[in-house]
Amino acid sequence: MKAKVSASRTQAVSKIDPRIYGSFIEHLGRAVYEGIYEPGHPTANEKGFRQDVIDAINELNVPLVRYPGGNFVSGFKWEDSIGPVEDRPKRLELAWRSIETNEVGLHEFMEWSRQANTEVNMAVNLGTRGIDAARNLLEYCNHSGGTYWSDLRKENGDEEPFNIKTWCLGNEMDGPWQIGAKTADEYGRLAEETAKVMKLVDDSIELVVCGSSSSKMPTFGEWEYTVLDHAYENVDFLSLHLYWENFENDLPNYLAKSMEMDRFIKDVVAICDAVKAKKGSDKQINLSFDEWNVWYHSKDADAKRDPWDIAPPLLEDIYNFEDALLVGCGLITLLNNADRVKIACLAQLVNVIAPIMTIKDGKVWKQPTFYPFMQASNFGRGTVLTTLTEAPTYDSAEYKDVSYIESTVIHNEEENEVVIFAVNRSEDSELQVESVLEGFDGLSVKEATELAGYDPKLTTKENHDAME
Amino acid sequence: MKAKVSASRTQAVSKIDPRIYGSFIEHLGRAVYEGIYEPGHPTANEKGFRQDVIDAINELNVPLVRYPGGNFVSGFKWEDSIGPVEDRPKRLELAWRSIETNEVGLHEFMEWSRQANTEVNMAVNLGTRGIDAARNLLEYCNHSGGTYWSDLRKENGDEEPFNIKTWCLGNEMDGPWQIGAKTADEYGRLAEETAKVMKLVDDSIELVVCGSSSSKMPTFGEWEYTVLDHAYENVDFLSLHLYWENFENDLPNYLAKSMEMDRFIKDVVAICDAVKAKKGSDKQINLSFDEWNVWYHSKDADAKRDPWDIAPPLLEDIYNFEDALLVGCGLITLLNNADRVKIACLAQLVNVIAPIMTIKDGKVWKQPTFYPFMQASNFGRGTVLTTLTEAPTYDSAEYKDVSYIESTVIHNEEENEVVIFAVNRSEDSELQVESVLEGFDGLSVKEATELAGYDPKLTTKENHDAME
Amino acid sequence: MKAKVSASRTQAVSKIDPRIYGSFIEHLGRAVYEGIYEPGHPTANEKGFRQDVIDAINELNVPLVRYPGGNFVSGFKWEDSIGPVEDRPKRLELAWRSIETNEVGLHEFMEWSRQANTEVNMAVNLGTRGIDAARNLLEYCNHSGGTYWSDLRKENGDEEPFNIKTWCLGNEMDGPWQIGAKTADEYGRLAEETAKVMKLVDDSIELVVCGSSSSKMPTFGEWEYTVLDHAYENVDFLSLHLYWENFENDLPNYLAKSMEMDRFIKDVVAICDAVKAKKGSDKQINLSFDEWNVWYHSKDADAKRDPWDIAPPLLEDIYNFEDALLVGCGLITLLNNADRVKIACLAQLVNVIAPIMTIKDGKVWKQPTFYPFMQASNFGRGTVLTTLTEAPTYDSAEYKDVSYIESTVIHNEEENEVVIFAVNRSEDSELQVESVLEGFDGLSVKEATELAGYDPKLTTKENHDAME
Repeated sequence: MKAKVSASRTQAVSKIDPRIYGSFIEHLGRAVYEGIYEPGHPTANEKGFRQDVIDAINELNVPLVRYPGGNFVSGFKWEDSIGPVEDRPKRLELAWRSIETNEVGLHEFMEWSRQANTEVNMAVNLGTRGIDAARNLLEYCNHSGGTYWSDLRKENGDEEPFNIKTWCLGNEMDGPWQIGAKTADEYGRLAEETAKVMKLVDDSIELVVCGSSSSKMPTFGEWEYTVLDHAYENVDFLSLHLYWENFENDLPNYLAKSMEMDRFIKDVVAICDAVKAKKGSDKQINLSFDEWNVWYHSKDADAKRDPWDIAPPLLEDIYNFEDALLVGCGLITLLNNADRVKIACLAQLVNVIAPIMTIKDGKVWKQPTFYPFMQASNFGRGTVLTTLTEAPTYDSAEYKDVSYIESTVIHNEEENEVVIFAVNRSEDSELQVESVLEGFDGLSVKEATELAGYDPKLTTKENHDAME
Repeated sequence: MKAKVSASRTQAVSKIDPRIYGSFIEHLGRAVYEGIYEPGHPTANEKGFRQDVIDAINELNVPLVRYPGGNFVSGFKWEDSIGPVEDRPKRLELAWRSIETNEVGLHEFMEWSRQANTEVNMAVNLGTRGIDAARNLLEYCNHSGGTYWSDLRKENGDEEPFNIKTWCLGNEMDGPWQIGAKTADEYGRLAEETAKVMKLVDDSIELVVCGSSSSKMPTFGEWEYTVLDHAYENVDFLSLHLYWENFENDLPNYLAKSMEMDRFIKDVVAICDAVKAKKGSDKQINLSFDEWNVWYHSKDADAKRDPWDIAPPLLEDIYNFEDALLVGCGLITLLNNADRVKIACLAQLVNVIAPIMTIKDGKVWKQPTFYPFMQASNFGRGTVLTTLTEAPTYDSAEYKDVSYIESTVIHNEEENEVVIFAVNRSEDSELQVESVLEGFDGLSVKEATELAGYDPKLTTKENHDAME
Repeated sequence: MKAKVSASRTQAVSKIDPRIYGSFIEHLGRAVYEGIYEPGHPTANEKGFRQDVIDAINELNVPLVRYPGGNFVSGFKWEDSIGPVEDRPKRLELAWRSIETNEVGLHEFMEWSRQANTEVNMAVNLGTRGIDAARNLLEYCNHSGGTYWSDLRKENGDEEPFNIKTWCLGNEMDGPWQIGAKTADEYGRLAEETAKVMKLVDDSIELVVCGSSSSKMPTFGEWEYTVLDHAYENVDFLSLHLYWENFENDLPNYLAKSMEMDRFIKDVVAICDAVKAKKGSDKQINLSFDEWNVWYHSKDADAKRDPWDIAPPLLEDIYNFEDALLVGCGLITLLNNADRVKIACLAQLVNVIAPIMTIKDGKVWKQPTFYPFMQASNFGRGTVLTTLTEAPTYDSAEYKDVSYIESTVIHNEEENEVVIFAVNRSEDSELQVESVLEGFDGLSVKEATELAGYDPKLTTKENHDAME
C-alpha cells in the first residue's frame, strides 16, 4: 500500500503546548506507594523516591503530572496530607475502596515533581468540599507568606511557594460513581464560584473545569454547555476523558478508535465556541484532555478484589503491541488538534494503566505503550503543520472510511527539524509513505525509527526488553 | 354484634420483619436523661442506666430503637457525643429548645442497646450537615479498624465495631420546622449522594430515606416521587410518620383513624412502585413507618414552656384506654401491610409520648398503650395471613364504612401457633368473633386474653396498676 | 426663586426609627486599623481606640454601626476574631485583596461600640458559610451562658451577652464580585433556613435579608421577589444599596440623583407588598438602606493598587461640597420614606468613603459630608410629617421635573420642636422658602443654620476647618 503525507511550512495548526505530553499520578493502587515511592528500594533516595522510576519518567520527558486524582480527589481532605507524617490520619479511601495512609502528601509530591523535572496539575476536591478548602489549598501552595496557610507551608518545610499554575476544578463530577457527584447546574455553579475565589487568591493560575467523564455519558453535550454557561469567564480549559477497550478483540476496529477521540475533540470545541458566541465573549476556552489511554485488561480482576487494602494492585493493565499502536494514533490525534488541545494527560504514569511498571523491591519495566509516548514527547515539539493524508481506507465494525495511516507533521523550529509521526493500521500490509513538505529547502532524512513487526498481542510483562 | 375473621394457611401477606415492633428514643425531654439514664437511681447499674426501665422495655420485646432523633438529629454534631464525658460540649439544642449535655453519647447508647437487647436504627444529620459527617460516623461505627475514625472508636472504648445495619438519612426533611429543611429536590439530591457514599463505606447497611413528615403536608406525594426519583437505587426504605389526635373528643371517629394509616401506606406503596415502573428497576422500595403514635395530650402544656432547660418534661402525653385501643388498631394495620412495612417505630419509648414512664428517683410505670404493644410484639411473630373480616360498619364524622372490628391473623410457624389480634371499635356493644382458619388441622384455643371493660378515659397515671 | 414647604401636625409619615442614622464600619482599608483603632496614637485609650475618632462619631450621634462587612463578611470566619490576639490567624482577605490580621475582633469591636455609644448591626457570612456558623456566632453573642459558645464568650472576657438585636443575612449576595455569590433561589433558600435557625437561638433578634446590591443589577426586582418568596416569614427587613457618582461632572444632574433613591425605595416597597399580598401574610417587611453614599473619587486610584497590604488606603474618597449637598438630599429622601425605611447606614464611617478621616499619628478631620449627616442625626428625631413641597423645577441630563428644593418636616415631640431640612439644588440662585405648618400654635424660629456659599468643589482635605 502507498500513502502520501503533505504539509506546508506556512500552514500551521498551532504551536504545541508542551503540556500536551502530560501524564497523571493518582493516589490509586500502586501508583504512589510501590510506584514512585518505595523507601526500602535499592534505588530509593533519602526521600524514599525510586530513582529508577524517575529515570524512566525522564525518558518520557513529561512536563506536567496531574495529581492527586482522579476519583480520589472527590473524597480527599488535603489537610490530611501535610504536617508530620506520623500525625497524618489513615483514611478509608472511598473512590477505590482502599486505605490511604497519607505517607506521601503534598510536600512529598512537590519534592518528587522537582526531582522528576515536571510541573504539577493540582486538583481541588469539589465532591465533598467547596470554596473554602480550595482557596486554603491554593493559599498554602502559592502565596509567598505572611498569612496562616502560607506560613504553615513554610513551617512544614517549604519556604518558597510551590507556584502551581494549572488547577483542576474537581474530577468527573458528572459521573454517578463520583463521591459527591453533581448535576450540570450544581457543578457549574460550584465551579463558577470556586474558580472566582481561586483567582482572587492568585490571578496567575489557569483553571480546568470538568467536562463529561466520557462522550458516552447520557448528559454529554448538555453538561458541557450548561457548565460553561455558568463558569465561562472564570475558567480556562474544559476537560475530556476517554478510555479505549478491545474486549471484542477486533484489531482493525480497535485501531480505528482514535477517530472517536478526534470526533470528541471537535464536538467539544463546537460546544465551547457556541457558548462563546452566545455570551459574545472575547475569550476562548481550550481543551485539557486530561485522561486518555487504553483501559480494559485489568477490569475483570479488579471487580473481584476485596476492599480496604493499602496500595492494592489495581488497574494494572498489561498492555500489548496493539495498545501501543492505538496510543500512537491517540498522540497523533491530539497533536493534530493542538490548536485547541493545550493539555493532555496520559492516564496514568506508573503501575496504574501506565507505561511504567514497578516490581516491589525489584525492577522498573516499560510497557509497549511507553515507546510511542517517549517518541512523541521527545521529538514532537514545535509547531504542528496542517497535515493532509492520502491513503487507502477500510470499514471496520464501527467505523467507516478508516484511513490506513494516521499521521502528523511537526516543524521543530528550534532544532530546525521536521518530524513525521505515522501509524500503519494494517495488520498485514506494509505502507510506503511519500512525504511532500513545502517550504523546507534542503531537507534530508536525519533519522527514521520504526516500531513494527511485533505480534499485536506481544507484552513486555515477562520479557521486559522485548521492545527495547 | 357478630363478626367473622377468615384466613388460610396458604394465603400469606408476608413474613413479619421483627423490626415492625421497633420504637424510638430521641434526645428530647426526659427520654434519655431521667428516662433510660439516671445515675443516682436505685436500680441504676454502673453505667447509670435504670434496670427497671430496661426490664419494662424487655417486656415489650423491642428489636430496634431509632436514635438519636427525630428533629434533634438535624442540628446534631455527632462528634460532640464521643470522647471523655467531661470534655463534651453543652449545646443549645434548637429542635426542642433545650440544653443537650451530651452526657449520654454514642458509646453509652450502644452499651445501653446491648443491655436492652435491641438493635439501633441510627440517623445521620442531613439538616445542617452532609456527606462527610455521615461517612465519618459510619466509619466510626462499623469499620473494623486501621483508619482514623475506626481507631478513634477503639480508643474511646469499643474495640469491636457497632455494626449498625439500619440507618436513617435525616428526619422529616420536608418540615418547615426542621433545622435545615429541604425542598424535595434538595433533599433527594443530598440523600442520593450521601446514600451512595455510605454504601461505599459499608455495603451491608440498609438506608431509610425520608418521606413526608405526614400525609397532610402540602407536598405529600410530590415529595415522595421526587425524592425517590433521585435516590431510588441508593436507598432501601421510605419513611412514613403519623400522629393521631382526639382534640374533638369523638371516640367513634377517633378509633377509625387507623384507616388513615392504612390509606397512607397504600398511597405510598403506589408512589414507590410508580417510580420503580418509570425507572424499569428490579428493586422494590419498602416502608419504614418510623414514627407513629397518639400525640396530643401534652401539646398545650409544651407550647407554654420556656426554653433552655436540661431534660425538661416535654411531650409527656398521659394516655388513656381509648388511645390504647387506637394503638392496637395501628399495630394490626401495620401487620396487615407487612408485605411492604418492614420497619415501624412506635414514637417513642420512654417518657416522650411513650408507653413507659419514669418518676425521678422513683418508679417506672406503664401507660395503657404499653399493653397492646406488648401483646403484639410478643405474640405477633411469624407470617401474617391475608385476613378477611366481615362485620357491621358505621360512619363517623370523618370516615365512612368503618368496620367495628380491626383484626389480623398471624401464623407463627416456629411455635406452631395461630394468633388472632382483634380490636372492637364499639364503645358499648360486645362483639362475638367467629374465626375461620383454613389449612390448620387440629387447631385448638390455647390462650385468649382481652383488654376490655375499661373507661375510655382511664389512665394509669395515678393508679399505675389499673391495667395490669 | 421661591419655594413653599407645607406640613400638618396630624399628617405623619411615621415615627423615625433612630437606626435610620446608622453607619458602617467594614474590615476594609483603614476603617478599623488606623481608623477607629491605632494603639500608638496620642489619643488612643488602653484598648487602642482613638478617642478623637470616637468624639467625632459622637458628634454625628450614630445609633447603629453595621459590622464587619460588606463584601468582607462573605469570606470571613468569625472564629478567627476571638481568643488571644496573638493566636489569631492572619488571613488572605479576598474581598479587598488585603491581609486581615484579626487584631481587632469581635470582643474588641463590641467594646469599641460601647465606648462609641452605638449599637452593632452584625452580619453573618452566607458566602462561604451557612447555618452552623451563623447559629454559633449568635449563641456566642447573645446566649446568657451554660453552653459551649456562650461559655467561650465568657472565657474570652465578656460575662454578659452582647445582645445584638439587628443582624444581616450576608451581604450583596447577588453580586458576581461577591465571594460565594448566589442566585436568588440559592440565596433565598439559604437565608430562609439560616433565619429560621437564628430565631430558634434567639427569637428577639431582627433580621435583614439581602436585596439587590443596586437597582441597576440585571436581576433587580426578580431577585427581591424570589428571595422574599422564600424567606418572607423568617425575616424582618430587606436591604437596599446605592452609591452615587459624578464622573460626568454635571452638578444639576448630580444633585438630582437622590430622586433615584426615592424611586428605588418605592419600587422595593411595591415588591415587598406584592409578596405580602401573594402570601396573604399579616406581616410587613420594612427596608434597611444599609449602604448609601457618594463613591467614585477613589475608584481609579484603587484599581491601580497591588494586593496584599495590611490596612491599605482604599476607597478614600475626598468629598467636596457638592457631595455634601447630595448626601443632604439623600438624608431627606430617607426621612420622607421613614414609614418603610427603618434602618439606613451611611457607608461608611471612618476613612473608607467616610465623613471622618484620620491621619496616622495625627489628626482626625471631617469631610464636607460630615455636616449634613450631623445636622440630620442630631436634629432629625421624632416624627416625619407628610411634606408638600412647591418649587420651580428643572430638567437635567437624566432627570425630568427636578424640584429645586428637597425638603422634609420633622416634629420632635420630646423637644416640642419642628425641624425643617431643605436643600437648594440651584448652583446660583438663592431660594426663599416659605413654610406652612398646620397644627402648631405659637411656633417661632429658634435656630436656623445654613451650609451655603461654598465652591461645589471645595474639600476639607487641606484646610480641615473650611466648613466648621
